[in-house]
Amino acid sequence: MSNTFGDILRITTFGESHGPAMGGIIDGFPAGIHINLDEVQRLVDRRRPGQSVVTTARDEKDRVEVLSGMLDGMTLGTPIGFIVRNTDQRSADYDALKDCYRPGHADYTYTAKYGIRDHRGGGRSSARETLCRVVAGAFAQQALRQLGIEVTAYASQIGDVKLKKLHYECDLLSIEQNAVRCPDESIAQSMIDAISKAKEQGDTLGGIVTCVAQGVPAGLGDPVFDKLHAQLASAMMGIPAAKGFEVGTGFGFASCMGSEVLDAWTVRDGKIGTITNHSGGIQGGISNGEPIVFNVAFKPVATLMRPVACINAECQLVEVAQQGRHDPCVVPRAVPVVEAMAALVILDNYLKNKATRI
Amino acid sequence: MSNTFGDILRITTFGESHGPAMGGIIDGFPAGIHINLDEVQRLVDRRRPGQSVVTTARDEKDRVEVLSGMLDGMTLGTPIGFIVRNTDQRSADYDALKDCYRPGHADYTYTAKYGIRDHRGGGRSSARETLCRVVAGAFAQQALRQLGIEVTAYASQIGDVKLKKLHYECDLLSIEQNAVRCPDESIAQSMIDAISKAKEQGDTLGGIVTCVAQGVPAGLGDPVFDKLHAQLASAMMGIPAAKGFEVGTGFGFASCMGSEVLDAWTVRDGKIGTITNHSGGIQGGISNGEPIVFNVAFKPVATLMRPVACINAECQLVEVAQQGRHDPCVVPRAVPVVEAMAALVILDNYLKNKATRI
Amino acid sequence: MSNTFGDILRITTFGESHGPAMGGIIDGFPAGIHINLDEVQRLVDRRRPGQSVVTTARDEKDRVEVLSGMLDGMTLGTPIGFIVRNTDQRSADYDALKDCYRPGHADYTYTAKYGIRDHRGGGRSSARETLCRVVAGAFAQQALRQLGIEVTAYASQIGDVKLKKLHYECDLLSIEQNAVRCPDESIAQSMIDAISKAKEQGDTLGGIVTCVAQGVPAGLGDPVFDKLHAQLASAMMGIPAAKGFEVGTGFGFASCMGSEVLDAWTVRDGKIGTITNHSGGIQGGISNGEPIVFNVAFKPVATLMRPVACINAECQLVEVAQQGRHDPCVVPRAVPVVEAMAALVILDNYLKNKATRI
Amino acid sequence: MSNTFGDILRITTFGESHGPAMGGIIDGFPAGIHINLDEVQRLVDRRRPGQSVVTTARDEKDRVEVLSGMLDGMTLGTPIGFIVRNTDQRSADYDALKDCYRPGHADYTYTAKYGIRDHRGGGRSSARETLCRVVAGAFAQQALRQLGIEVTAYASQIGDVKLKKLHYECDLLSIEQNAVRCPDESIAQSMIDAISKAKEQGDTLGGIVTCVAQGVPAGLGDPVFDKLHAQLASAMMGIPAAKGFEVGTGFGFASCMGSEVLDAWTVRDGKIGTITNHSGGIQGGISNGEPIVFNVAFKPVATLMRPVACINAECQLVEVAQQGRHDPCVVPRAVPVVEAMAALVILDNYLKNKATRI
Repeated sequence: MSNTFGDILRITTFGESHGPAMGGIIDGFPAGIHINLDEVQRLVDRRRPGQSVVTTARDEKDRVEVLSGMLDGMTLGTPIGFIVRNTDQRSADYDALKDCYRPGHADYTYTAKYGIRDHRGGGRSSARETLCRVVAGAFAQQALRQLGIEVTAYASQIGDVKLKKLHYECDLLSIEQNAVRCPDESIAQSMIDAISKAKEQGDTLGGIVTCVAQGVPAGLGDPVFDKLHAQLASAMMGIPAAKGFEVGTGFGFASCMGSEVLDAWTVRDGKIGTITNHSGGIQGGISNGEPIVFNVAFKPVATLMRPVACINAECQLVEVAQQGRHDPCVVPRAVPVVEAMAALVILDNYLKNKATRI
Repeated sequence: MSNTFGDILRITTFGESHGPAMGGIIDGFPAGIHINLDEVQRLVDRRRPGQSVVTTARDEKDRVEVLSGMLDGMTLGTPIGFIVRNTDQRSADYDALKDCYRPGHADYTYTAKYGIRDHRGGGRSSARETLCRVVAGAFAQQALRQLGIEVTAYASQIGDVKLKKLHYECDLLSIEQNAVRCPDESIAQSMIDAISKAKEQGDTLGGIVTCVAQGVPAGLGDPVFDKLHAQLASAMMGIPAAKGFEVGTGFGFASCMGSEVLDAWTVRDGKIGTITNHSGGIQGGISNGEPIVFNVAFKPVATLMRPVACINAECQLVEVAQQGRHDPCVVPRAVPVVEAMAALVILDNYLKNKATRI
Repeated sequence: MSNTFGDILRITTFGESHGPAMGGIIDGFPAGIHINLDEVQRLVDRRRPGQSVVTTARDEKDRVEVLSGMLDGMTLGTPIGFIVRNTDQRSADYDALKDCYRPGHADYTYTAKYGIRDHRGGGRSSARETLCRVVAGAFAQQALRQLGIEVTAYASQIGDVKLKKLHYECDLLSIEQNAVRCPDESIAQSMIDAISKAKEQGDTLGGIVTCVAQGVPAGLGDPVFDKLHAQLASAMMGIPAAKGFEVGTGFGFASCMGSEVLDAWTVRDGKIGTITNHSGGIQGGISNGEPIVFNVAFKPVATLMRPVACINAECQLVEVAQQGRHDPCVVPRAVPVVEAMAALVILDNYLKNKATRI
Repeated sequence: MSNTFGDILRITTFGESHGPAMGGIIDGFPAGIHINLDEVQRLVDRRRPGQSVVTTARDEKDRVEVLSGMLDGMTLGTPIGFIVRNTDQRSADYDALKDCYRPGHADYTYTAKYGIRDHRGGGRSSARETLCRVVAGAFAQQALRQLGIEVTAYASQIGDVKLKKLHYECDLLSIEQNAVRCPDESIAQSMIDAISKAKEQGDTLGGIVTCVAQGVPAGLGDPVFDKLHAQLASAMMGIPAAKGFEVGTGFGFASCMGSEVLDAWTVRDGKIGTITNHSGGIQGGISNGEPIVFNVAFKPVATLMRPVACINAECQLVEVAQQGRHDPCVVPRAVPVVEAMAALVILDNYLKNKATRI
């Protein structure tokens, strides 16, 4: 429930954006895995704000401090605790929000639930919480790599700019070469232009992140309620601003005939495979050995760079100026979060699958 | 994990479609709720095949037998066990599938996972399992009704035929008046025509189910990993053939500017509300008191009414004729399943929310 | 929570003693295990009342009907649903209890919790629920046997009659040769005499069940909160009438010096072992390869065969005569329940342990 | 599983004794509770070593740093993260243990489970982990106090010295007045003498902690597997060195007749109560409103102050001198840990009970 994710491999996080620190515990991580902590830090840095013109100007250092669970660079099988101190906070920026609720944010709903909220920088609802997911995901990605599994996400749509190519038509290694993390330089430039234009107008943009997991063996996933894509959907919808999930052909299936989208069998490298991959690598909730492919839709950030009408507990509308510093589009920074959550789901299911037989 | 869904209110199901029975246990259901078992049976009957030309011809009786957890029509707070006997099985229909895997089905992936599978009628992967969810959902819906919460789903797209109206522009009480469960008679007729045409061609169709939950109080949902829409996404992606989920404006957000979709505050009946409902009734993962609205995309059924190329464990393609009896489109029968799962999620969160304060 | 036990291997049960049926779902059971259902029935029969003078006279048939999860005698990895119909009920025996609470029973506390209770035969609090545990345990025991693990329990004390021998001084195969399940014929006879005497007086007796698990490999158990003996303690304290648990030397440790009870190392069959086994086969919460040994204390049954003072909701004392049919001592019938729960814990931990490394 | 405890109120801990820090996350803690952090620190200090001649000489500062979940002294309903830095470590003391296993410790079993272990100071198996439980318990105790519930534990036996009085015959407020935490000055002195004598001999002593929870309302506890005493047993057996648990008359029931220990009804302050309390405040797994009373047996610490024979992975016995600094008897420092775990169980069940009805 709540602040824990996963079944055998579980991540629990804590932290308000303007409190002393964010942090988490990775439990159930397999023992005896060599972890490169510099690589963990590198993935966390990818999520960091202030990387480019399309992200916010805050310069958080976000140094990950691992407090347990490792000896001489190797995991012990015991829980891995970590923290990241919060710095560069301008909490006073948020004073005006103490007694009122911004539209499109969690201010009102947190108060409805708990009767109290930390109004500074979104408190617990801040997307800053996702850095803890990236830390955990970075551990998972290193374990997956030893199993020959690679998870890659990228921006496939920002505003009206869409990447039409499919994942196997792109060079997924090129993603980090532009500020929006799109594996097509020309589309990337159009996306950057769109974001810049929105930013000039004090506005924000939505978009889509596509994620591909390659090398996942057949057999992962629980076939009834916890279908592999049900777990992925849950993981993705738990990311702030995520509003849609689809696996394989997804919503496109709605207007298709069965004969158009039936993934016909083939044999590849002596193993059973499918010619097309409309199912996105999952059949009956279980991986079939094909690449797992899914999309996540993100809404435009609710914080506009212009005054908006907030409401207070007395039901009065109050105009409040721009608060804090925010990205005009979450998609570029959501990419590593999507990868992290996907990696956690896949490693968890890899571990669960080992218990299927004695 | 696996065959259990929910946190405090939990449903666990069992059953292969051609085994002796399907069944389940509803645990954590609140005590002291009057349950009308005829109404439970009525909802189960909605899911039943053989209701119309657009569904399969099997005539399963699907009589629900409640075995525990109630006394004199009232819940005891103890687990509610129930079974539904399997009848009208033609297991021999499936003999040809014993040693080969159909495309687009779970035959191969179950075998990859477990090393064994029940090949008769899809075994555990049969959509027949969802009748257990409808039983549990029917209990939840009766409890929700006492709380003033009503969950309604309907077909909003089948193949290329789309219902353009939004939920508040339709008479949701009219849904049962046509075979596809669409709250617009004219669109419903087009949908029926589309299904009939596909059926004639031995083909199948995908579609979309829209679901609306009205009367949900503000404050439900766990705000980090288990956001209310993350739980709904998981619940919906666990339904057979479901391949996409979106809440509120969903994938439509991707091409929007923030200023276009920011739900501005208003005051309604002395309570805080929003003028538009792009967020689908959920902000920061917690319900805000507006109607909860989401869509679920379903793929066309993989079982075509014509011979398809199966593959066997020796990687040989084998042509196998049509097996069993199947719907040309799952959407009409998915409607009560979507309602059931949504009701379970909402009641579970209602109960969880009670523990937020002492 | 509540009616589910276990982490990966989970048993969920339902049923009131005078409702239509008891039953359960075994989920997470490994695939591909041959199960002898006659052997399952045989273990259930061991728990059955009416076996001897020392148990109650009810003659319940308790036929186990397995409804799912198996094909041709082999487990599928899918949930195993089962039911046992309730028969030979004399519900009217309990009419006098409808509005009052017996001392030493759960009548009052169930009402305090749920505001309602099934007063017939203890309802959900009836020890009849444990037959579902025995069914699940019987499956687990067959899987464990394939792993070379054998779980055996026996009566080691009834009233003042104590078996002084330790488990390795007894022939554990002789347990079924007497009505009290004590592996010493002479002590068994004294126990039977003690029970008969108590029964004549309309009184009841407490006792202790000892359990030994042999062949458990080193490495099972979660080392912090879910120590192997913490899981066993939870499993045992969940059995009706169980009031105490100790592992190895247990309460005897309290009056010992460390030097007296330190299990010194030895080498046995080329493997690390201990000379003594004060720790009961568990160190730091993890099995060490020695036999796991623990005791469970049971209170005397609260139902005396004489009138007792009950109390009603209006706080009035009411004399009520003997109700229903009850054992004068639960120990003999608790033996198979202890074995079942121990088997479930050990198999669950065997499966969990597989996820410790990739 | 593993490093998380609780259902709705959950504590997850991390930390090796010689790593950078210990810490944890308290999740599901109710919102809006005023917490006195000085009081939390005071309870942690009670667990600290170096308090008296009967505890070890290490002087750890154990300053608790709360990192999230609170604003202006009040809980937010969000997860409460905290850490305690490890200081005063003499890791080199443990070099000799790197490649061998001490008797009576978790060295061998951790290695069997994980293939790797942190050999310094017991690593994750160190009792130092329990300070995280005390932090969490301190939060729970403050919430319970607002509900009128008070949890108190004390030493009732150390070696052969037994406190014969029952809890209501003692002044439970006097517990902190002596080094062993026994509510009888004269017995306390005998216990101190016994520990001193054992210490002189380089030996250690076991003992028993008794715990009493007063003011617990009737209705708490899940009646089947998770009986309130099953949860308490699990909580207590998860404490290092704990080897036995009994509720109420516990093992004493074994030699009793039912008529001797049947808690007869009475009416107290207009409410239903029992004259005696053999059941320890729990009937059918649910609290009945009487004080909850249980005992926990602790083994003598395995670390003797004299050379012991360790064993290495090559099955060779190696004599190793005394390592680190250890208590000659864990009981005095176990008292606050028992209180903490009991408080967590009771508050968790209080919260769970709120979901029993709508």
